[in-house]
Amino acid sequence: MHQTASIVPRGRRPLRLLLPAGVLAGLLMAQAPTAAPPPAMYGFLPAAAARELQWERQMQALPQAASLRASLERLTAQPHGAGTAADHATALYVASVFRRAGLSTRIVRYSALLPQPLEVRIELVQPHPQPLANYEAPIPGDRFSAMKNAFVGFNAYSPSGDVTAPVVYANYGLEDDYAELKRDGISVRGKIVLVRYGRSYRGIKSELAALHGAAGCLIYSDPNDDGFHAGNAYPAGSYRPPTGIQRGSILNNNYPGAPLKPGEPLPAGEAAAWKAALPTVPTAPLSYSAAEPILAALAGRPAPRAWQGGLPFTYHLGGSPQVQVHMRLRMDFSYRTIWDVIGQLDGRQPELVLVGNHRDAWTFGAVDPNSGTMVLLELARALGKLHALGWQPRRTLRLCSWDAEEYALIGSTDYAERHLAELHKSAVAYINMDEGDFGPYFSPGAVPSMRRLIYAVARAVPAPPVTPTGSVMPPPGCQPQTVYDLWQCQRAAGAPAGASAPAGPPPIGVLGGGSDFEPFLDYAGLASADISFAGPYGVYHSLYDDFHYFRTQEDPHFDYAVACTRVMGLLAMRLAGANLLPLDVNAYATAIGRNLIQMHQKQPPGPGAQLNWAQTEAAATRLETAARDFSRRAQAALANAGQHPKRLARFNTALADFEQTLQRERGLPGRPFYRNLIYAPEITRGYATARLPGVSQMLEQKNWLGASVQLRYLYEALQRAAIRLQTVR
Amino acid sequence: MHQTASIVPRGRRPLRLLLPAGVLAGLLMAQAPTAAPPPAMYGFLPAAAARELQWERQMQALPQAASLRASLERLTAQPHGAGTAADHATALYVASVFRRAGLSTRIVRYSALLPQPLEVRIELVQPHPQPLANYEAPIPGDRFSAMKNAFVGFNAYSPSGDVTAPVVYANYGLEDDYAELKRDGISVRGKIVLVRYGRSYRGIKSELAALHGAAGCLIYSDPNDDGFHAGNAYPAGSYRPPTGIQRGSILNNNYPGAPLKPGEPLPAGEAAAWKAALPTVPTAPLSYSAAEPILAALAGRPAPRAWQGGLPFTYHLGGSPQVQVHMRLRMDFSYRTIWDVIGQLDGRQPELVLVGNHRDAWTFGAVDPNSGTMVLLELARALGKLHALGWQPRRTLRLCSWDAEEYALIGSTDYAERHLAELHKSAVAYINMDEGDFGPYFSPGAVPSMRRLIYAVARAVPAPPVTPTGSVMPPPGCQPQTVYDLWQCQRAAGAPAGASAPAGPPPIGVLGGGSDFEPFLDYAGLASADISFAGPYGVYHSLYDDFHYFRTQEDPHFDYAVACTRVMGLLAMRLAGANLLPLDVNAYATAIGRNLIQMHQKQPPGPGAQLNWAQTEAAATRLETAARDFSRRAQAALANAGQHPKRLARFNTALADFEQTLQRERGLPGRPFYRNLIYAPEITRGYATARLPGVSQMLEQKNWLGASVQLRYLYEALQRAAIRLQTVR
Repeated sequence: MHQTASIVPRGRRPLRLLLPAGVLAGLLMAQAPTAAPPPAMYGFLPAAAARELQWERQMQALPQAASLRASLERLTAQPHGAGTAADHATALYVASVFRRAGLSTRIVRYSALLPQPLEVRIELVQPHPQPLANYEAPIPGDRFSAMKNAFVGFNAYSPSGDVTAPVVYANYGLEDDYAELKRDGISVRGKIVLVRYGRSYRGIKSELAALHGAAGCLIYSDPNDDGFHAGNAYPAGSYRPPTGIQRGSILNNNYPGAPLKPGEPLPAGEAAAWKAALPTVPTAPLSYSAAEPILAALAGRPAPRAWQGGLPFTYHLGGSPQVQVHMRLRMDFSYRTIWDVIGQLDGRQPELVLVGNHRDAWTFGAVDPNSGTMVLLELARALGKLHALGWQPRRTLRLCSWDAEEYALIGSTDYAERHLAELHKSAVAYINMDEGDFGPYFSPGAVPSMRRLIYAVARAVPAPPVTPTGSVMPPPGCQPQTVYDLWQCQRAAGAPAGASAPAGPPPIGVLGGGSDFEPFLDYAGLASADISFAGPYGVYHSLYDDFHYFRTQEDPHFDYAVACTRVMGLLAMRLAGANLLPLDVNAYATAIGRNLIQMHQKQPPGPGAQLNWAQTEAAATRLETAARDFSRRAQAALANAGQHPKRLARFNTALADFEQTLQRERGLPGRPFYRNLIYAPEITRGYATARLPGVSQMLEQKNWLGASVQLRYLYEALQRAAIRLQTVR
Repeated sequence: MHQTASIVPRGRRPLRLLLPAGVLAGLLMAQAPTAAPPPAMYGFLPAAAARELQWERQMQALPQAASLRASLERLTAQPHGAGTAADHATALYVASVFRRAGLSTRIVRYSALLPQPLEVRIELVQPHPQPLANYEAPIPGDRFSAMKNAFVGFNAYSPSGDVTAPVVYANYGLEDDYAELKRDGISVRGKIVLVRYGRSYRGIKSELAALHGAAGCLIYSDPNDDGFHAGNAYPAGSYRPPTGIQRGSILNNNYPGAPLKPGEPLPAGEAAAWKAALPTVPTAPLSYSAAEPILAALAGRPAPRAWQGGLPFTYHLGGSPQVQVHMRLRMDFSYRTIWDVIGQLDGRQPELVLVGNHRDAWTFGAVDPNSGTMVLLELARALGKLHALGWQPRRTLRLCSWDAEEYALIGSTDYAERHLAELHKSAVAYINMDEGDFGPYFSPGAVPSMRRLIYAVARAVPAPPVTPTGSVMPPPGCQPQTVYDLWQCQRAAGAPAGASAPAGPPPIGVLGGGSDFEPFLDYAGLASADISFAGPYGVYHSLYDDFHYFRTQEDPHFDYAVACTRVMGLLAMRLAGANLLPLDVNAYATAIGRNLIQMHQKQPPGPGAQLNWAQTEAAATRLETAARDFSRRAQAALANAGQHPKRLARFNTALADFEQTLQRERGLPGRPFYRNLIYAPEITRGYATARLPGVSQMLEQKNWLGASVQLRYLYEALQRAAIRLQTVR
């Protein structure tokens, strides 16, 4: 996953109360502890709700910790980067599990430009020659960490190159950092910039290094960010040990998908954009033990206070020829085959619900992504079993194991591009998992229309029994009955899931960039969510992200993996089974209106404040009214579904189309792939989410004409969405 | 000085333009770069202003870098803790300089309880025995650092004791930190707490350790706070090296002055308060090299992320018997003699202007306090020379070299207590210097009535020529003509002096606690200021605060010392010479009104918001009106001083009394010494300033009745002040 390691508060106590053994049988009681009947299930007619509850109860009893563990062990037996033989073996394994579960299964092959490292040599030349390790040291007790067949530390899509140059330390390598260097009279032109991971996508770090004329770019993991200053380092804890290297792609993420697809000529403009997106500066990652001799040797002006990291000396900006580093990178830029695995359970109606997770990993991928893959497989087994017992989903369920996410979301993007017509016609939602299970913090992200469903599901799944062996414990004094309770506890204790408002339901993040939901949400226009149980995870993209790490630091008893499978199962079943799609256009319209007003109010007096905000705000208000009226009529249509089934179908089609009405087919400025006018990856950081991205991007650039045009596009989308809802009767 | 080390941004470039040699002659031009006449000098009649300018010009030419350097070298030849023979030698030296300058000089002896360390032994017992150093390692090239006759690392007023106990790491030892430990189920009862310096006065750290039942308290300097993570460590830079120890008093600072004065029975309540104020838990300071083996050995729960310091491992909370430390402290609690030195230049009128600086030091005191003492001596020389040339101040100038500030502001407090009647009758202002010169950041603090004068003086003193050898350089692109320009440049670059508003004059801090202005501002009721040129200063209270450190890291050419002498000279001369005292009651009244409204608006709905704010706010508004009218009439009185000299004198008396009208003789709740109702040291941190301290303290404690009483006291003071101003005609 293109994502920085999650940081959660350290030093929390274990839960005092373990969940009683009988809780599973009584799990629906957890939802309503009194003897009152369970609340109506949104989107289901009463009889369907009762049947659904029966099936859900059975589904929740099916996930097995032992089975999840066996899947993970099998998936992570070898490093399995995209396009390798080991990757193919995991595809065959996933396909075999899907088939055994009774899913109609196929493996889809694509071809993509996937560079692999032939040689990565980084060495200190001055003040004294010293080679710097490009591979992790073995950790006693962790047999995987002694294996030598993973990729060495490298950044995918870095060009080959051979550079010897002085070094400048440039903090996180953000635009502000280069501005500070400039104020200090230090140029990086012709030099190697040493930057630390964090605060931005690594591809942006390499791109800015190029923009400022650097000859090379080294990106290291500072112990202050995800190493010993953040918490105990592996094997004592889950943070990054001295030789842990963060591998990762540096492809500019404005153009996900398979670069320069062979045999399939791209439109001229797109091909040129692709070529332009390939990084130009030799770039490689370093562990902090490898970066330490360079940083310790740098002299000159001390770095600004905020640039100081966790190594035990004062950081300096460097820049003088007294410290020189040699980088020699040889990359094999080859087209390789990748394998998506698609398993399907046919529904009674042609509508389609997709669940996806990638399978390729930079090394073993125990957390990223195969903690999600084991859940996907367990979900396939559970749904297959239900199906064998007589359950059939109303809508078709499609489970997708994507390949080459780590390079550029390639497997999922190719799939979405080739199935665009089908997705537009039939798909109603996409649920993603990437790092599915790496701690106790339930951390969903979703478009606003999915929030209500996520709350309902979190209330219906019992909280996992908590044992004191994992690396993070829920806050003290918390006795959660359900995942929802656990989520609220963690939020009350200031867990990252919800630092903001202390009252009301826990906030659900919006979707930014960095995983396979991008082609579905941003390009195909599907209501999307991303599910994970999160925690501290300092070994991200290093050799240590292996089975031994997972079972000692992350989820020793696979309790959260079981909970995650249940959550995924209920989400899929309700989306696939509801008479009326459980998508809440009301919440979506409200969120848009609020975002618009906040953006407007943030404008200082001047041209930004003088744009025609009123027109678009009025459209947002009309959309809110239209959504409210639509929801009322939809409830009525649901109630009368027996008499007027086609009427209910019209409402469902409108709900499935809603996300598409918020798109603009020509995309955002400079980003034709990104069509969603409400959410997109933030352009200068990469992982964060931009809200109303067309308008916000133009405002940031002080391009007032552009902002006015984008406000107009947004106005048109909101009008379109409102009219679409109003016309359904 | 009772103060944490100043932190300033690191990594600044040297000034590009050195001040031309002829600038001194043209210094008044610097104030008004065009050919326009200099602005009228506030408080002076035109003829007096012209004479004053002549004398000021002569005064500014007198301070000599060589002379300042010689003074500092002489003062810091030996460690000179209060009450030692070396301290007496510095008193004799100061007296000799005063006398030679022509000041009528006397040495005033007091006696005070000044503990000295007989033995300070700190050692790791478990997991392995290891002695922990209580003295600094010599630094090559710094001959002072090889001297062995300074106090070992100790905290004055710690009781003797012999403790062996497990260790708990408690961050900064604040109340919040103990609350966090409690949430984590860790008790410090019977254990040794290891806390780091910073965020609060060390006496409060020891007191809270006692309150929570600790058996011992170790306070160490973390490299993240003033060591290598803050910047280059001495001798490469000015931050704390591995063995640097912060000595210092831990006496509860609610009761400054000489504890348990011999032969002078205190009122019963006061003596009991004094006894209660003596610390009860054995407490000692550690360097980070001494703390490192303890911190590295601590196990158990990892400390919260914000508690992590700069040492290269994960910090843990500890608490188990696997890590034990032995503290053996033997203290000699003896009464010793201290020596204040007072030099006086008689004025033509009985009014009195005081300038003070302490002389005693924990070790050599090159920065703290003798960078101020050398300026005080240079000021004495310059004013003496002017006097010899025929200048006589209108008001008497009294220069004071205080003793035993480091223990408990003892010399200054004793003096203020014994001269209270004289101060109330005659004194018009007090100017303090403590660490007078330790960098290029002009950092005055003052009551609001002194701000206008400080701005005027800063505009009249040329900016020091800046050489690239000091440890901090002014921001790039800055070509200051005057100290005021330099101050604005630094503020624009985000220097600590003014991070807030970017427009208008640079902000001047209000006076909190921690130096000799306390007895004059808070007790005697004198308009007060504190002057320094600040910079990074990581060797605070360590052996390394010596002459070699000063001339390599702080002010190599004594340029800022010269500037500081000029600033002090102009402040003293204008206060002593003005026809109408240059105190701005308008600014004071405005500040009070603003503080009151801010405090009111900060109250959440509830009892705090329902207090009778309106009454006191109305009094503040009346005071603003009264101050405005008073100032107008005072200008008129000044203009007619020739006809009505007694009328002007009445205005001057009212200005001199103004600070006293804002006092309450019985003091703040629980702090009878602190009589000022507008400013006081913040009660739970010690160094910071509480505004409207009676009200704010009660509000913090949610003592609504107390708050209402304090609001009433404040109302009475504001009424009193307004009436006092209104009745002067």
